[in-house]
Amino acid sequence: DIDAERLWDSLMTMAEIGPTPNGGSCRLALTEEDAAGRRLLIDWCEALGCTWRVDRVGNLFIRRAGRRDDLDPVATGSHLDTQPQGGRFDGILGVLAGLEVFRTLDDHGVVTERPLELVVWTNEEGSRFAPAMVASGTYAGEFSIASTLARTDRDGVTFDEALQACGFAGDLAVGEPRLDSFFELHIEQGPVLEAVGESIGVVAGVQGMRWYDVTFTGQTAHAGPTPMRLRRDALAAAARLIDRLQSHALADESGHTKVTFGCLEIAQGSRNVVPGEVCLSVDLRHVDEIVLDALEQRFERELADCSAAFGVMVSHERVWASPVVHFDAECIDTVESAARQRGLSYRRMLSGAGHDSVYVSRVAPTAMIFVPCRDGISHNEAEYASPEHCAQGCQVLGDTLLQRAGV
Amino acid sequence: DIDAERLWDSLMTMAEIGPTPNGGSCRLALTEEDAAGRRLLIDWCEALGCTWRVDRVGNLFIRRAGRRDDLDPVATGSHLDTQPQGGRFDGILGVLAGLEVFRTLDDHGVVTERPLELVVWTNEEGSRFAPAMVASGTYAGEFSIASTLARTDRDGVTFDEALQACGFAGDLAVGEPRLDSFFELHIEQGPVLEAVGESIGVVAGVQGMRWYDVTFTGQTAHAGPTPMRLRRDALAAAARLIDRLQSHALADESGHTKVTFGCLEIAQGSRNVVPGEVCLSVDLRHVDEIVLDALEQRFERELADCSAAFGVMVSHERVWASPVVHFDAECIDTVESAARQRGLSYRRMLSGAGHDSVYVSRVAPTAMIFVPCRDGISHNEAEYASPEHCAQGCQVLGDTLLQRAGV
Ligand SMILES: NC(=O)NCCC(=O)O
Ligand SMILES: NC(=O)NCCC(=O)O
Repeated sequence: DIDAERLWDSLMTMAEIGPTPNGGSCRLALTEEDAAGRRLLIDWCEALGCTWRVDRVGNLFIRRAGRRDDLDPVATGSHLDTQPQGGRFDGILGVLAGLEVFRTLDDHGVVTERPLELVVWTNEEGSRFAPAMVASGTYAGEFSIASTLARTDRDGVTFDEALQACGFAGDLAVGEPRLDSFFELHIEQGPVLEAVGESIGVVAGVQGMRWYDVTFTGQTAHAGPTPMRLRRDALAAAARLIDRLQSHALADESGHTKVTFGCLEIAQGSRNVVPGEVCLSVDLRHVDEIVLDALEQRFERELADCSAAFGVMVSHERVWASPVVHFDAECIDTVESAARQRGLSYRRMLSGAGHDSVYVSRVAPTAMIFVPCRDGISHNEAEYASPEHCAQGCQVLGDTLLQRAGV
Repeated sequence: DIDAERLWDSLMTMAEIGPTPNGGSCRLALTEEDAAGRRLLIDWCEALGCTWRVDRVGNLFIRRAGRRDDLDPVATGSHLDTQPQGGRFDGILGVLAGLEVFRTLDDHGVVTERPLELVVWTNEEGSRFAPAMVASGTYAGEFSIASTLARTDRDGVTFDEALQACGFAGDLAVGEPRLDSFFELHIEQGPVLEAVGESIGVVAGVQGMRWYDVTFTGQTAHAGPTPMRLRRDALAAAARLIDRLQSHALADESGHTKVTFGCLEIAQGSRNVVPGEVCLSVDLRHVDEIVLDALEQRFERELADCSAAFGVMVSHERVWASPVVHFDAECIDTVESAARQRGLSYRRMLSGAGHDSVYVSRVAPTAMIFVPCRDGISHNEAEYASPEHCAQGCQVLGDTLLQRAGV
């Protein structure tokens, strides 16, 4: 059995890197904080005799040798980067649970048949460099290495520059090593498990998601003498779009339609100037690809309406689309059996968040394990998962890995 | 008669300080660009034998001696600071028209009875330091010197620090010199004069205006798994407020209700995070103080509605209120006669924008002169007033000053 206390200690120690005022963490991808988190993990794993490699987009692969090192490893892992005001569990739990499994195997001198691989994927959050899961996507062939290295953050720093600066530009070929299978433990980041009082989510797939950049171009004008009807107010158009799509999503009784506007910037905003240009990010999600298509069309129609209503030009670009994902049936079953054999309450469910498993599942059989988090809150400093739930998820992960790797 | 070409040349020369990509100017208050503009003006005036003084909040007073220097001067002027993407005329025309009047008097060796004073008021735009017209307001006793010096810009730099750094912290007592009267020439910054094809606006007063800072506090949450109905989306609440008040103002057939949201900032915005905190600036204006009261109440009601609809806490603070202003009847008449005697078409009108005259009118008889600007556009790099219109306004200003100062 895994050591619940040791797992919790490692989570809290990691959280001390990039601490935020209200008890969360800020380790934006490829910053000095992100690198410090990785170095701490490497130290811990080297103490267990593990070896590690880094690929050209910064993905970190830590290997625990097996009896048959000619076979592809059974892999687990997640990410260590966080949102600007992120929590202590999102991604981190999946990585440190892998570490705890390695430590437990070490305690008992267990050597698995297949090697085990603990993976830290770069820039999962998509907060510094869009899109999310860009480095697991590159590993899986969704994005070219060149396009990933050329992505820029808000300050114009490229992914490659940040990677070099923080010392994690490796030479392992992207796509290496090939994995026998991949299992990712993560907090649910939503309220379902807590609401039904269950401990384990057996994740069968992930909803589809699309990201857009929208630019509204009107005309700056003086707030005082400019008549309302002569204005071309870029913010008025953006606000109406937001309100319309919010209302549309709220009206969906099924609760499956999700729209989020996370970033809005007024170019050169000034209190007494009618905004001339607004940039808005749009995030649309749904569990059904057909409905997601319809949602995209609705968004485009509303956008055209707002453009006409306020005499504002609009342009939009789809910067990312991640289709609905279904995980591997055998991997899902393995997770489910592990939960059942431990006597834990569980349910099959879909993930509302994207995870590195989305892309890894294209090149290796994959499944995920969820544990509840308090009030369903995530991407928030207050994010919390109890020591028991973390330990239960870690135990199911450990059992799953052993089952798949063989002893 | 004033020299139209010389006036235009000085406008274009000033515009070369802090030029913007699309032909406008950026001289934010108390920056190095603002100081450079002032030094250029001082050089020009010293060449005419004028003397100058600066008060503790940076207001610059340039004197052309009269026959009776024991009498209070007849004053003119405006401001040299601009919006971040400002034009070449807003404020600047009023200052350089004063200069042109001085030059014309010099050409003809005219000495007025009362001295003439050309004033450059600090930070009129309110764009770097809120509120607008803060230094003419301090001169007129609306704001204490200490409160003005302590105001901060977005980077936390105080007015006083900026003043010292740019070398315009003077020692003239604030409130000095007292003025016999004040006349300010300005572009209309709205579309009325152009629409009716008239050359001169005889400005009888200024509409009332109120500024607010609103903070919406919800809760950051993950854009994927968080159900719409459990969100507390700060931006959704702000967007609805904007849309509601826009619709309200647009529905006013009289066109007198004006609402503007010039700044909106999401704290730590991220594409896949439901915004937890939004700061919004609100600018409400009306020509009738009673209706402005009702508009404020409407704003507060809508704000409470949006707060309830999205489960978001709101707080708001009125950061500035400038009541409806009526200028001095005699000064208005003097301007009107000057326009009539020059055979120029004119109309009496109210100003939609605040001007330093708003505060100066509390301590000295005041009136303003407007000239048309193309398409009514201002607070925009494309702002434009024709050389003829600038010259006509300058001529009316010169005639008015001579009339009031006596020859
Ligand atoms: N798990 C997680 O926060 N992933 C980021 C990608 C997303 O926005 O769903
Ligand atoms: N004239 C001018 O742009 N003044 C700024 C104050 C206002 O917002 O009306």
